[in-house]
Amino acid sequence: MDLEKFKKFINTNDRFAASNGMSVIEVRPGIAKASLTVCENHLNGVNIIQGGALFTLADLAFAAASNAHGLVAVGLTATISFFKPGLTGDILTAEAKEVNLTARTACYNVDITNNSGVLIAQFNGIAYRKKESIDEKF
Amino acid sequence: MDLEKFKKFINTNDRFAASNGMSVIEVRPGIAKASLTVCENHLNGVNIIQGGALFTLADLAFAAASNAHGLVAVGLTATISFFKPGLTGDILTAEAKEVNLTARTACYNVDITNNSGVLIAQFNGIAYRKKESIDEKF
Amino acid sequence: MDLEKFKKFINTNDRFAASNGMSVIEVRPGIAKASLTVCENHLNGVNIIQGGALFTLADLAFAAASNAHGLVAVGLTATISFFKPGLTGDILTAEAKEVNLTARTACYNVDITNNSGVLIAQFNGIAYRKKESIDEKF
Amino acid sequence: MDLEKFKKFINTNDRFAASNGMSVIEVRPGIAKASLTVCENHLNGVNIIQGGALFTLADLAFAAASNAHGLVAVGLTATISFFKPGLTGDILTAEAKEVNLTARTACYNVDITNNSGVLIAQFNGIAYRKKESIDEKF
Repeated sequence: MDLEKFKKFINTNDRFAASNGMSVIEVRPGIAKASLTVCENHLNGVNIIQGGALFTLADLAFAAASNAHGLVAVGLTATISFFKPGLTGDILTAEAKEVNLTARTACYNVDITNNSGVLIAQFNGIAYRKKESIDEKF
Repeated sequence: MDLEKFKKFINTNDRFAASNGMSVIEVRPGIAKASLTVCENHLNGVNIIQGGALFTLADLAFAAASNAHGLVAVGLTATISFFKPGLTGDILTAEAKEVNLTARTACYNVDITNNSGVLIAQFNGIAYRKKESIDEKF
Repeated sequence: MDLEKFKKFINTNDRFAASNGMSVIEVRPGIAKASLTVCENHLNGVNIIQGGALFTLADLAFAAASNAHGLVAVGLTATISFFKPGLTGDILTAEAKEVNLTARTACYNVDITNNSGVLIAQFNGIAYRKKESIDEKF
Repeated sequence: MDLEKFKKFINTNDRFAASNGMSVIEVRPGIAKASLTVCENHLNGVNIIQGGALFTLADLAFAAASNAHGLVAVGLTATISFFKPGLTGDILTAEAKEVNLTARTACYNVDITNNSGVLIAQFNGIAYRKKESIDEKF
């Protein structure tokens, strides 16, 4: 699979991530990084980044890492824990790492850190791997 | 606490939810509903609603239900499981129900259903309840 | 599948559950109940039931409900939240209900209540369904 | 706090862990290791270690690491994902590491590996830290 083309595909076609300013910046099979600069549109009622924005950033990295093996991988379940607030102007990076891979399932840990290296949140996702190829989609 | 004013506050100030077309439509202490009509901007690379959009909708209902007691409640951790795809045009409702409440913590189940009554996803969130009042914020 | 025989099989062969006083008392495809009377051996350092004992009881109901369809179902991931303490002498019931079923995966909610009807803990488990039949095992 | 005395306390008083052959082998504030040699009593119906036994081992390490700061810490919620089967004779080690600590809450990752260094399962737990001291208990 052409990973550069796959990165472009995901950054164009994941419209929820794209329209909220998030993009995949690095991807290999089982590993990916996604990035976001926090702006006012990402905030919740108490002026910190909304949990859903953090989840979306982590989910983008999870989707990139899990689909980069070549099979369509869909999320079954994910857990996120929130540690420190993300604030306007923060550059957040979500880094997904595969911790288990079987024929049909896979598990990923995603750390979200800010540009000072502080751990903002942790995400863990389980993917189901279909039999169809992702590169038929682009 | 004036719940009508609180609903208006959350719908205006949760800018991530608002800018993505989501709003709280009902809120009482421990209970809330939030709604979203899925459009193209909510989709992922395989043309179904992105997991982060579903999470955000559930998180909005969770935030409304948990803060409606009057104390500022922040999410510690949440788990979401994905069952059926949400598609363009679907009207999704996230309904949060409190399953446990202590002085400092609380737990909520959130069901996301579509306008045919199909269960799309389930979310479970744990909140930490601070000592400050939410109505000082508005 | 002979569900009475399956119940006997699980109650005999799940040696971790059996040796800790837990048993399946009811099982149908997608639904199961398991029971435990809390005694001293289930307690932790602060004299309430250990989280692992609650998890095991829920996991037993989850295993029964998910395998009762006839295919071997194995747990991929599970989340448990703890609400109220379980105490010596409490009769705890874990009731598993299927919330989603696909060809290869399934999701179950399990409520653990005591004999006064108080919700002690909630468990959510995701199973992967293999192609082999469970009744070849007994 | 006398950590040697605390370790002895937890190994004696967590009767569910002790009666199932599990013990804390190392503990410092925020960090702990617990160990188990898998025997027949830990198995489930398909002859691998029961998920509840793995959860209990991880929960023991989580309890040790979180209480070692000196305040009573209780589990609010935990998630465990299962990767590889644990088999009779395996020596399993659960290693808990703190990833976040606030005045009233804390978060821990626990890796369970076997004696060949294979990752068997991953656990993530959130604790609520009470105001009472754990060393008043022993």
